[in-house]
Parts: sequence; structure tokens; C-alpha cells
Amino acid sequence: MPTVRFLPSNQSVDVPVGTELIDAALKAGVEISAPCGTKGTCGKCVVKVTEGDVKGEESLSLSKEAVKEGYVHACKTIVRNRNFTIEIPQQTSKRSQFAPSEHDLMRIKAELLPGEWEMHPMVKSVALVVDKPQPEDGQSDLDRFLQSLRNNIEKDIKVSLDYLKQLAITLRQDNGRLTAFVFCHEEENYLVDIKPGHEKSDQYGLAIDLGTTSVSVQLVSLPSGKILKTVTDYNQQISCGVDIIGRINYAQRPDRLEELKNRVLKTFNGLIQKLIDELQLEREKIYSAVISGNTTMTHLLLGLTPEYIRLEPYTPTILNLEIQKAGEIGLNIHPHAPVHISPAVGSYVGGDITAGLLCTDLASDSEEINLFLDIGTNGELVVGNNEFIMTCACSAGPAFEGGGIMCGMRASGGAIESVKIDAETGVPVLKTIHGAKPQGICGSGIISLLASLFSSGWIDSAGKFDRSRLNPRIRVEGRQAFYLLANGDESETGNPLLISEAEIENVIRAKAAIYSACSLMLNQLDIGFESIASFYIAGGFGHFLNLEDCITIGLLPDIDRNKFKFIGNSSLLGSYMLLISKEYQQKQKALSNRMTYLDLSTDPAYMDHYTAALFLPHTDLSRFPSHT
Amino acid sequence: MPTVRFLPSNQSVDVPVGTELIDAALKAGVEISAPCGTKGTCGKCVVKVTEGDVKGEESLSLSKEAVKEGYVHACKTIVRNRNFTIEIPQQTSKRSQFAPSEHDLMRIKAELLPGEWEMHPMVKSVALVVDKPQPEDGQSDLDRFLQSLRNNIEKDIKVSLDYLKQLAITLRQDNGRLTAFVFCHEEENYLVDIKPGHEKSDQYGLAIDLGTTSVSVQLVSLPSGKILKTVTDYNQQISCGVDIIGRINYAQRPDRLEELKNRVLKTFNGLIQKLIDELQLEREKIYSAVISGNTTMTHLLLGLTPEYIRLEPYTPTILNLEIQKAGEIGLNIHPHAPVHISPAVGSYVGGDITAGLLCTDLASDSEEINLFLDIGTNGELVVGNNEFIMTCACSAGPAFEGGGIMCGMRASGGAIESVKIDAETGVPVLKTIHGAKPQGICGSGIISLLASLFSSGWIDSAGKFDRSRLNPRIRVEGRQAFYLLANGDESETGNPLLISEAEIENVIRAKAAIYSACSLMLNQLDIGFESIASFYIAGGFGHFLNLEDCITIGLLPDIDRNKFKFIGNSSLLGSYMLLISKEYQQKQKALSNRMTYLDLSTDPAYMDHYTAALFLPHTDLSRFPSHT
Repeated sequence: MPTVRFLPSNQSVDVPVGTELIDAALKAGVEISAPCGTKGTCGKCVVKVTEGDVKGEESLSLSKEAVKEGYVHACKTIVRNRNFTIEIPQQTSKRSQFAPSEHDLMRIKAELLPGEWEMHPMVKSVALVVDKPQPEDGQSDLDRFLQSLRNNIEKDIKVSLDYLKQLAITLRQDNGRLTAFVFCHEEENYLVDIKPGHEKSDQYGLAIDLGTTSVSVQLVSLPSGKILKTVTDYNQQISCGVDIIGRINYAQRPDRLEELKNRVLKTFNGLIQKLIDELQLEREKIYSAVISGNTTMTHLLLGLTPEYIRLEPYTPTILNLEIQKAGEIGLNIHPHAPVHISPAVGSYVGGDITAGLLCTDLASDSEEINLFLDIGTNGELVVGNNEFIMTCACSAGPAFEGGGIMCGMRASGGAIESVKIDAETGVPVLKTIHGAKPQGICGSGIISLLASLFSSGWIDSAGKFDRSRLNPRIRVEGRQAFYLLANGDESETGNPLLISEAEIENVIRAKAAIYSACSLMLNQLDIGFESIASFYIAGGFGHFLNLEDCITIGLLPDIDRNKFKFIGNSSLLGSYMLLISKEYQQKQKALSNRMTYLDLSTDPAYMDHYTAALFLPHTDLSRFPSHT
Repeated sequence: MPTVRFLPSNQSVDVPVGTELIDAALKAGVEISAPCGTKGTCGKCVVKVTEGDVKGEESLSLSKEAVKEGYVHACKTIVRNRNFTIEIPQQTSKRSQFAPSEHDLMRIKAELLPGEWEMHPMVKSVALVVDKPQPEDGQSDLDRFLQSLRNNIEKDIKVSLDYLKQLAITLRQDNGRLTAFVFCHEEENYLVDIKPGHEKSDQYGLAIDLGTTSVSVQLVSLPSGKILKTVTDYNQQISCGVDIIGRINYAQRPDRLEELKNRVLKTFNGLIQKLIDELQLEREKIYSAVISGNTTMTHLLLGLTPEYIRLEPYTPTILNLEIQKAGEIGLNIHPHAPVHISPAVGSYVGGDITAGLLCTDLASDSEEINLFLDIGTNGELVVGNNEFIMTCACSAGPAFEGGGIMCGMRASGGAIESVKIDAETGVPVLKTIHGAKPQGICGSGIISLLASLFSSGWIDSAGKFDRSRLNPRIRVEGRQAFYLLANGDESETGNPLLISEAEIENVIRAKAAIYSACSLMLNQLDIGFESIASFYIAGGFGHFLNLEDCITIGLLPDIDRNKFKFIGNSSLLGSYMLLISKEYQQKQKALSNRMTYLDLSTDPAYMDHYTAALFLPHTDLSRFPSHT
């Protein structure tokens, strides 16, 4: 019998020829999830074959490039008469770090990603041989350089004083042979750098997700598009306010606005330094960057007051911004590197959404209606097809990011990400990230906990504990009841991990805000959830989320599970796409211009929808047939 | 009889009705020159009538505006039956400071200067009322601002981060009323400033002549075009080399190149500070500037290496430069103020020449062939008409700027500007600037001295003293002879002022270089000096120069005196024109593109022409009929 070995855990198992890889994994005790029911559509079971004679098939969730690299669907791959070594990508193993894994890219629809021959980064390098100066030719160094450039790029290129200063020397260093790095855009073209000689030099770019809570910076080799590394850290603005409103309040004084700008730049530049150190590369070879963040984060990065985002009629200073130079905004890469900042649609639908949409069918010419939902402290929702696109935002509160809950935490090592509660004993089986001793509970854990408390009958549809059932796990203090997730001796910190009814209420409010935003918007479009072709779910916790749990508590609608597509940190993925091909920048611009922004807070029907959703799963149970 | 009073000297005279003003001046002992022989063409006798019923007539040398202000030709104005008060402009009085007087402008051909309604400064101020934001209008502050601007200016205006930062506040400060200052150009348009409200605010510009020896900065009120003040100082680079070649040599080390840049900026910014202090104005209200200088000076200002200007094939880094921002080049005015730097034609024909040409008929559509000569350490020459324009440069040495001569000095107070020597006694009659005790001799004085020594027979046509004539004014030491201009007790410094044969030889070389450049170029065009319609003479000493002296020594050709037009510091005048109307910038660009640059140093005939000119006035006396 062939042996199948799983990396990085190094567990192995002997299985008969013909066994599906996903079953081999199960037998070996390696958990691979397949929420699509092994249909090969969700892409969650993708693994890499490092030894073994097998080839994957390109699919919606597996790009041509990924197949070349040996990635396959575990649910679609059969063990033949040879030994296999299988590498489980971090994300597939459900043991993901907080950082989105490089493998995320495999899950972008393959046809969206350009092939290598279609890569169009913002900065192009051109090898030139500039003519020598001739007596009385009436040509300056700049004239001859531009002439030579014009033979390669049919645009007038602006040369800044910095490069004029180098030009005379560079032209004469290697007999007129030099490499020009040029930024070409519809409206603006300029010289980013010049170097003597024709030596093929490395070029890099950064895709950046600028989140309210955390910031991810991804280093990409260009023009190949290869992702070299992704690093993530908390946004250092957190100490000035945990959410957008907190930051806006903090920014009211000019010196504090400046402080917020410096804090996010410090976060960026710290992560960039980390990449530079780890990969031993020259900072000046990072020639471009894309930053996608919500409207407030973008304003704070640029030092623009976010004050009027908070005040009616909620007007940002900018939605669209021209290309900026890295040096001008304070990004510590090549100072002339063009930086694309993803355009926003409104005060509460920002560049993270217009970037994220690029990973979905909403960016295609499809007639089918698709829905995109980004779940975080704010929920952003986009619904549309090739004829219309509507968008709105709602405030969910920080519960889904582990905030506003005593024992809440971010989705990192030691966070409880799944909870199963025994209906009889009330004892929970906890699953933590990295299998560590529990330190707290993260967003997916909270959803799992709520779903389990509800389906095992420990709480009712209003989220209240049945005080008639005495149980050591339920504590009642005054009018408040608590559920004990872990005793002090079970937890990493030594403190018991408790969740209160009031906290559960917060979570119910959060899920109600998101669900009702979806239902109201569809209502206004006169369609139901069943009309949605694909339901894309983005967000930091997208990786860990259990779909059934979400439906159990009524966060997501009770529709065909195959329609759900978890796309993870789509703001980062979209940034990557914008970085490797500027055609996406045009697409994004066109997309954001097509989007109509709705302000739900002014719609009188919103409160009705919201109130109706303040139950588990919903007041109207006919909406959740599988849980009645 | 009417009384005519002359200011500022306050001399007055009673003259019969019908007397010409120029004769009244003569009678009063006030010297007004009229090199055109009172034909009203040279403009040298222009005065201002501050009391008296008389009106001037617009002419080639008197603009409509000047007439409105009371300027008249003294040679064309008759005293009627009323008292007159006449103000003698500095320049007309032949008592000019080194600084070019504001009156210079009167001498530009009137039709070249735009009327007030044609003024087009680079920066336009626009009063806007920007709509208030509306709920769900999908418009950012920037969108509404640009929309409002688009109603006034049909161009897309780039708004830099600096102003995006102010936009939200400025829009809300006075109910959307604000004033935008916009730079509009063919290729680039950007916001220079925004201010809340519609208060009519002052706007200023700077016209700058960047000379190798001295720098003049002229403050102009815009859009009226009124010249408020002109200040002049030595270029602080002088201590790093007195001439261009010296500066280029000094600039070979990068730190010294930086030093040269800083020195000229210090000169500029010192003069700007002086203007700001004296006129008590806000620095930030200076919204534009024009700088005209030779190619090397421009390179040094921008920190560009001038090395290859000095080396064959004499190639500058730039000839044409796009508009720069004041802050980027280090000019201490509004940091976003656009700065136009006059384009060069070659390494030795720079922006001072392309600016200066704007004051001449060479910039018009005339079929007549005109010649423009800028005399300084380098001589630059332009000949052409509406079909062709040729230009070349020659190195005259510093003699005409008072350099390279022991007792030489700049044309400032105490400088001998004219010398008349008695043919019998050898005793000189000296005229100094401001009538002060002589300190030294300036360029015009040197020419006058040489002419007088020659025409009174003290030197021969080779510039040698007749050693057979003993005279207390002639000293012979070894093989060298000297002429004593002033004894120690006659001079300001207490030292005798002497000029040596070797120094006279230097001056002859300088005049030979310039004359032979002119004659060679005309030779190549197959025309003679008589074919020139107007012979424009520009340069720092243009004001003081005695035409006959120049012809006597053979610096200028012996042609109809009326063809000579002294246009003074035409680099500054041209800069003024470029400042008040950007149409001149287009004209200048077109003009410089049309110009063909000749390198005389490579022409074998040059040495013949030069050698032939090394006599007073010339080897070929038939060229100087009035002096044979």
C-alpha cells in the first residue's frame, strides 16, 4: 500500500490505491476542511504534492500557476501506486496564523489573475543606449535621453530635478547604456529611477492592507508577481482608539492628526524593515506600492482630517486620489515609487472594498447577481451585477474581532476558535489556534460558542440562559448570567474565561446589524437571498469561520452552502492584483464609479429589519428552514 | 517766462515759451543725453512731467502706459505758457545706480509690452463658491471643489497633499466661499494656494536676472505689472571663481557644487528678504517667479553639474526645463509658486539671451535683419529675422566688467565712467558715478579711457604709449608703461590709479573678440554690418556706454548711429515680460527652438578675424571711415 506523508506535521498513513487524499488525511488524523462537500469548488482543501505522480486540474479555485507548482484539491485527488508527500498549506490546515497565507491567492478565481505575459506593474524598466553628444547638435543630455526613451515608450516622461542631477554622470558611466525605470499612467508619466548599465536588476512591489485593527504588507517580486513574504502587525493607531469613531475623535486636534499619521507610517515602515531584513534586499528596489484601506484609515494615512466623515452628511475630503509618490506620503521605500491608493465609494465604503471586489464576480461582466460582504468592526456590503452595483455599510461593533468582550482576543495563537458544548453536561470542547492553552476567544470562536450554546439549548433564541437548569458552567450573579469557557487552571493566564449574557447580546446585535443590512438591501432591490449567485465573505476571520455556525446564529442566510465563498483578506488580495497589473486599477476605478452608495441609517425600514434579526437565528424562522 | 524745475536735483531755469525741454535742461545745467540726435528714437531723454500741461506721444520707446504716467521725450516737448516740474529718471540723468532703473521698461518697444487687459501671469486667482455637501451625493470635498473650479477654468487642476489637508476646513470656513490660486500651463496645471473668503488679496511676482557677477531681483505687482522695486547684489558665488570657467572648475567636487547652489540661493533669498522687509509684504504672496541666466548659472542654481559645458563637445544637462516649484529649487517665496527658468540654446547661449531677445525686433515677425549683442565677461551674439536666427558666443574676459584690471571696479558710486584726456598736457578730466572721488574705473570708463588715449594720440593703434613723449602722466617701468589716471591724493583710497599697457592689451583683446565674432558671423551669412536694421546692445554697462567711444576703439562697427539701441539689462527686462504674460514664455520657447547655435571656436576663420581686430580701431581702416 502506498504511504502518504503529511507536512509540516509529518504524520503518515498507509492507504489502498484509489483512496482520496482527503480521506487519507482523515485517517492520518490530519484535518482538512471541505465546506463545499468535496465538490472541488470551495478551494479550502487545496494541498501541495511535493512527492508523488499526480497533477491537479485548473479550476475556479486553482490557477494554472498553482497547478504547475503542484497544488491539487485533496477532495479530487486519488492516491495511486506510489508514495506521496503532501504539504498542507497553513490556511488549509485550519491552523492559520493571523497573517493571511500566500496560498490565499489560489482561491482567487483563476481567470481573474493575469498570466505572466499580461503582468503590467506600474513601473517599467527599459534598457537604453543613449547616443553620445555631438558638436553643435543643439541637444542637451536630457534631450538625447528623452529621445532614446521615446523610441521605447511613446509618452513624454517627466524627469525630476533629482534625476537631472544624476543624468550627466549616468549617461557617461557605461557609454550611454543605462536602465530607466519609468512610471507610465494615463495622465502622468515620470522617471522613477535611472541606473548605469543594463544589468538585470530585481524589482519589488508592496501590496498593503491598511486595516483599522491590523496592517498587512506583502512583498511581491515584479514583474513575475511572485509573492515573497507577507507580514502583519497591529495598526499602532490602536492605542488612540480601537475603532474608526475613536480615531476620528482622537484626530480632532491637529497635533493628534499628525500623531495618527505617524503611527500608521511607523507600522508600515516597521513591517517594511522586517521584510527588508529577512529577505536581505535593497529598500530602493521597491519601486511601487498599493494601499487599500477604509476611508478613515486612508485619510489618517495622508494627514487629512476625518472629522466630516463622522458628521452629517458624512463627507470625506477625498474619494479618489491620484498616484502619490512614496516619499511624499512617508512610505520608506524608493522615494519616487508610485503609490496607488484604492479609491473609496463613500465615507464608510472604502478602498479596502473596491480592492476586495476585484477578487469576485462583481468585477466581471456577469449578469448574475452576486453579493460581497466584508465582516469586521464595520460590515460593508456590495450587491450587483453588470448592470447595477449598490453598496452600504453598517456598524457591527468590535465583537467579531474579539473586541468588547472581556475574554475576547484577536485570532492569534491561544485564541479559542471553535467551541462544542455538550447538551447534557454543559462542558465545552475547545479548539484553540496552534492548539495552545486558551488565552481568550476570537471572532470565529465567539460565533461557534453562540451557535453551540444555542443548538445545545443552553441559551434561548433571545440569547438568555435558562436559569432553571443548574450547571457548574453557568454562573448567575444578580440579574446577569455567565458561561464558564475555561477555569483558571485551564487557561493560559490563570484567570477563568467567562462570557456574559450582556456580551452575548452584543454579538447578537452585531450579527443582526449585518444580516439586516443584507436583507434590507435585497429588499430594496426586490430580490431574495436565493437570487444571489455567489455570496462572497471577506474579512480577517474568514479563514476560521464555520459556515454552519454562522447560519445557526443567523449571521448568514440559510441558503445553498455552495454559494458561499470565503475569500479571506480580500483587501490584501485586491492590492496584490492592483500591484501586478495596472489594468486592475482602471477596472477598480470604473467599478467604484459605477457603485451607488446607500445610507442605511436614514432608511426608516432599517430599524424593523434590525429588530427582527435580534433573535437566534431570526424572528422569522421561515427564513432559516434548516434550523427549524 | 515759464519756470522749469528739474527734480531730483531741484535746479530750475526760466525759458521763453517754445523752448524744447532738452534745451531748458542744458540751460539749467542738467545733463540729458540724446544719442539719437533729438530724433525721439533712442528714448534716452525720456523724462516725467509732474507739473505742467503737456502730453507725450506714444512711440517706439514710449509705451501707452508711460505716456499716461506723464513721461515725454525731452527732445520733442516744448515749454508752453505754464510752469513745469520735470523729474529726471535715474537712467536718463546718466547718474544711474548699478541697478537697472524701473524706467528701463519705457525703452522696450511699446508694442511688445502687453496692455493691462492682456496681462497673463502664470498664477490666476479665482473666487469660488463651492456647494455644500449633500447626503448621498457621492461627492467628496475634492469632487465639489474641482467641479466649482471647472466652471471657471476648463482644465483639470492637480491638488497636492498640502492643500488636500486644508481643503475640508477651508471649504467650511466661509460657507464655501474661497479664493483659489491656480497655475495653468499647456502641460501642467496645479493648485498653488487656497484661502477662505473672497477678499481681494495682493499678488506678487519676481523677475530675476541671474548673472555670473551680479543678481537682480525685481518685485512686480500682479496682474497689474507695476514694478515695485528692483534690488541688486553680487552673486555670492564670486568668491568661488570670478567667471564661468572658474565656477565650473570649482564645481568639480559634489560638495562644492552644492556650495555653489547654496551661494546663489543665499544671494536670491537675501534680496527677496530685502524686498519683503522694505515693502512690508507677506512672503507667501509672491506667487510666481522668472529666472533668466546663462547656461552655467542655471545649472549651478539647480545643482546640475556644469562639467560637460566646459568639455568638448560642450553639452549641458538641460536646455529647456519644465516649470519648477519655488520650494523645490529653494527659492524662499510661496513654496508652490511656479518658477519659469528661461531656456538656453547652447552651452554658451543661455536663458539670459532668450529672455533678452524678447525686448528686440528679433522676437517680432520682421523681415529686417537685426543684431543683438550682450556684452559681459562673455559676449553673446544673435543675428536674424523672421526666417533664420543664428547665435554664437565669445569669451571677452572680465575687462568690460572692470575685472582683470588693477584699478578696475564695478559700475557703482566712485567708479570713473568717462575720461577726457588733453592732447597737449595728457591731463584727464574724470567723470565718476555720483560725482564721488574716484575709487577705480568701470567698464564704460575703460572704453572711454582707451578711446581718449587713442584719439588724443597718447597710444598708437596697437595700444602702446609713445615713449618719446615725456609726460608726468606716463610712467615707464622696465619694458612696461603706465598711464596715471589719478594721484593718490585725488583718489578715494589714497592710492594712485594706474593703467598699464598690458591691461590696455587685455581690453583690446576683449573688444577684438566681440567685434570679430560679429564680423565673422555676418561674413558667414554673407552680409555686412550695413545690412543690420537695428543693433541692440545689452549688458550691465549698457547705460553708461558712450557710443562714439565704442566705435573709436573698434568694439562696435562704424555704422549709422541711429541703428544702435541700448537696451540695458535685457535679461531682467525679458524676465519681467515673461512674468507678466505667459504668452511670452511660448514666444521664447518658439524663438529658442528656431535658433541655430554656432561654435566659433571650431571655425578656422575666427582667428583671422580676431587678429585683424587686435588694433585700434581695426587693421582694415576702411571699416571705420569716420575715424580715418
